[in-house]
Amino acid sequence: MRSEPVLALDGGGNSGRSLPWAATLDLKSGALWPASHVVTCRLSDMAGRYANRAAEQQLLASADPLIYRADEIVAPETRGELHTSVTVVFPGKVGDEYFMSKGHYQVDSAAVKVYLAIAGTGYLLMQNGQGDTMDVPMSPGTIAYCAAGWAQRTVNVGDEPFAYFKYWPADGGHDYDRVVAEGGFLKRVVERDGRPQVILATDIRA
Amino acid sequence: MRSEPVLALDGGGNSGRSLPWAATLDLKSGALWPASHVVTCRLSDMAGRYANRAAEQQLLASADPLIYRADEIVAPETRGELHTSVTVVFPGKVGDEYFMSKGHYQVDSAAVKVYLAIAGTGYLLMQNGQGDTMDVPMSPGTIAYCAAGWAQRTVNVGDEPFAYFKYWPADGGHDYDRVVAEGGFLKRVVERDGRPQVILATDIRA
Repeated sequence: MRSEPVLALDGGGNSGRSLPWAATLDLKSGALWPASHVVTCRLSDMAGRYANRAAEQQLLASADPLIYRADEIVAPETRGELHTSVTVVFPGKVGDEYFMSKGHYQVDSAAVKVYLAIAGTGYLLMQNGQGDTMDVPMSPGTIAYCAAGWAQRTVNVGDEPFAYFKYWPADGGHDYDRVVAEGGFLKRVVERDGRPQVILATDIRA
Repeated sequence: MRSEPVLALDGGGNSGRSLPWAATLDLKSGALWPASHVVTCRLSDMAGRYANRAAEQQLLASADPLIYRADEIVAPETRGELHTSVTVVFPGKVGDEYFMSKGHYQVDSAAVKVYLAIAGTGYLLMQNGQGDTMDVPMSPGTIAYCAAGWAQRTVNVGDEPFAYFKYWPADGGHDYDRVVAEGGFLKRVVERDGRPQVILATDIRA
């Protein structure tokens, strides 16, 4: 996973505070411009997260597909500031499991994260570490509020890019390891009879 | 100004934390559903904020127009939570000054507020209390980041409703009085030769 600065937008130097800024979000495609950072995640950056390891290895041997890309306007990581970002999860599957984001908790257990779908179709999978889950089907205009202390992962279940706008407290942080340590996400989204289906992760291993 | 609860969405009882939720934003009109609260602001709720007091009195004598309405999904006012809201500023003028929001600072000087225009055209006026201002013309897809410590006001300069999505730290609060105590907004948006123009507030009084 790479995060590359492309433009300094905060203009605040070392003040730890943003200045006001304006940008443009294409309400049809989700394109965000200008972004300050571009994050890219290829299959090799999320090794072991798909259920079908053989399919993963095969795909890695022939290519290392770009799974998702995020264009972000990064704020200082200070209380009260908010990050702004658009993620595009590309269409595709590893075996019968749809391309998805790495998935994470926030480091700060008080911090929420909010998703607004702009283009394409997908899911937001959430779980709270105590066995509770919530799966939100996302299409343009769906807002999903990932509550504090819940892990989150997005999945593209369509044939087109799945783009969503998202924002969250800039001092919230990302913890990609905890959900792995907990045994991964409890649900997976797979193609069954030509359609996306949310299943228990335990069912795919049976 | 009235804020009426229409639906309890947090589901968290007295926990002070939201549960996850999903809602829908119409990316064409800005309609947000379901909202937990509806805020309405009529001309009488913002007495003295328009420059032309005679025009204001005349309008109040014949009607008390609804200037704006906000449909909100209110989060617990706890650190890390975010409010979600769509405001519609209706088209109209008081004298030659376009309908606008009341305008405010956040109580918490560390809290930002972010605006995403969905429908119609308008302005976001910002100022920081030290004489610095920033005016952002807003049309569908414009994102404006109102930095911490900056006052903010929106203005509808079109013939249609000006609708924008907005979000901010739920513990940030609203202070409508400080900007009045400071002498009001330094800029006003008025119609000149049939077009909107941002002028210095001092120019309108001359």
